[in-house]
Amino acid sequence: MRIAVLGVGLIGGSIGLAAKRRLGAEVVGYDAEPANARRGAQVGALDRVGETITEALEGAEVVFCAGPVGALPALVADVGSTKRELIAGLPEDERFGRFIGGHPIAGAESAGVENARDDLFEGARWYLTPTERSGGVHYDRLQRTVADLGARPQAIDPETHDRLMATVSHLPHVIANVLVQQAAAAAVEESERLPEVGPSFRDTTRVAGANPAIWGDIFSTNREAVAREIDGAAERLREAAEVIRSGDGDRVAAWHGAARNDRRRLLEADL
Amino acid sequence: MRIAVLGVGLIGGSIGLAAKRRLGAEVVGYDAEPANARRGAQVGALDRVGETITEALEGAEVVFCAGPVGALPALVADVGSTKRELIAGLPEDERFGRFIGGHPIAGAESAGVENARDDLFEGARWYLTPTERSGGVHYDRLQRTVADLGARPQAIDPETHDRLMATVSHLPHVIANVLVQQAAAAAVEESERLPEVGPSFRDTTRVAGANPAIWGDIFSTNREAVAREIDGAAERLREAAEVIRSGDGDRVAAWHGAARNDRRRLLEADL
Repeated sequence: MRIAVLGVGLIGGSIGLAAKRRLGAEVVGYDAEPANARRGAQVGALDRVGETITEALEGAEVVFCAGPVGALPALVADVGSTKRELIAGLPEDERFGRFIGGHPIAGAESAGVENARDDLFEGARWYLTPTERSGGVHYDRLQRTVADLGARPQAIDPETHDRLMATVSHLPHVIANVLVQQAAAAAVEESERLPEVGPSFRDTTRVAGANPAIWGDIFSTNREAVAREIDGAAERLREAAEVIRSGDGDRVAAWHGAARNDRRRLLEADL
Repeated sequence: MRIAVLGVGLIGGSIGLAAKRRLGAEVVGYDAEPANARRGAQVGALDRVGETITEALEGAEVVFCAGPVGALPALVADVGSTKRELIAGLPEDERFGRFIGGHPIAGAESAGVENARDDLFEGARWYLTPTERSGGVHYDRLQRTVADLGARPQAIDPETHDRLMATVSHLPHVIANVLVQQAAAAAVEESERLPEVGPSFRDTTRVAGANPAIWGDIFSTNREAVAREIDGAAERLREAAEVIRSGDGDRVAAWHGAARNDRRRLLEADL
């Protein structure tokens, strides 16, 4: 089996490592930045580097495109983070008819193929967004390959995918950005002493300013859903300020307890 | 040296363990819930359990009160999280004249004396809020004791302390609550499938619904500063929604990059 990986970073490299170890596949990679592909070969994620996309695709049964969202529309499969705009923009030819959007819910603290791991997808949900144009044979093959990489494939329509991601991923990133900006402003006001930040701040803001190339694309392609989630969070914050300002211990306890139950429920269901 | 610990949970227990190991102190503890004090003795955090506060205080050179904020005003020293209301409410007698507010910036995932550790304060900032009434001798003794426990004491006025904590600790907790509530609402709407939540959501919401007894007190005693921080965050979110809705890649990049720089600066300075 031959697999092509277009875009050789944390995700593309981990696909390569997992495909070699778990599928015994030959993996050919391409990256617009040739140094990335060379590093991918050095760390064992690629058997071979394609000088061009066409060369990398030759003979591949499954092609994974793991580049930034903005670079995806020209390619045949993707592991990007937003789907709707991408799929609507696809030309109607034979090759693109085989395109199926995909998004593994997997990541790591550090980007780059040097952090790739062959177990990155083990047990991870991997959303797939087949359309009417994606033939059943191709979808079946992709689904099987994703499962063979250790992930749990699940079909989802692109609009639902983007809305869910806006809630559970894109909004947390926006909020992390807002928190550090607010703390930085406070630090300037209190210039005599910067606040010592505790573990709650460190965790809550871990993803602030994450990988700018990837997140610029995500905020751009999913902007309406993200902006609606932000509006919702701002409204909930206004309510929270009202509850806390009231000084009513029972209301505060009810509000805080609801969050405790929500988190427990979400964790039970999902983590 | 004899030390009294009033309130035997994660913090009080860790003070006991650290005082025994690092100061060679005799540690006497009291907890309004006798089972907590007994567990504290079992895990080695206390040499002896006082049946009453008075009994626990007898002969102690330094007294740490590590109960919830609401329980503090009756006691002589505290390791609580908000200071202003507490200090304004102190009676003007001899004993309370020795009170000095304190707050170690240290915590752990799990509360309770069974999770106490003798190294919990090693290298941690420990804010102290001396007032005009706290005599220099007493402040010097407390500062030395805190340093001997492994922490880095720093004097701060109560208002500044509460404003800083509102920014770097209380606001992140409010925001974690808001994020889980919003995700839970989305999960209900999408009842066919709950969203798989990725690591960004897990980290950003780790503190959601944390220890209700402690956080009810904090939100109550620091409500004005917390509400102001929430208002600020809601305003920043509105700006973020506007930037993202604009679809202007340069503006999004500038906004995201500023957060990246802010976090880097805050981390360099503080972590």
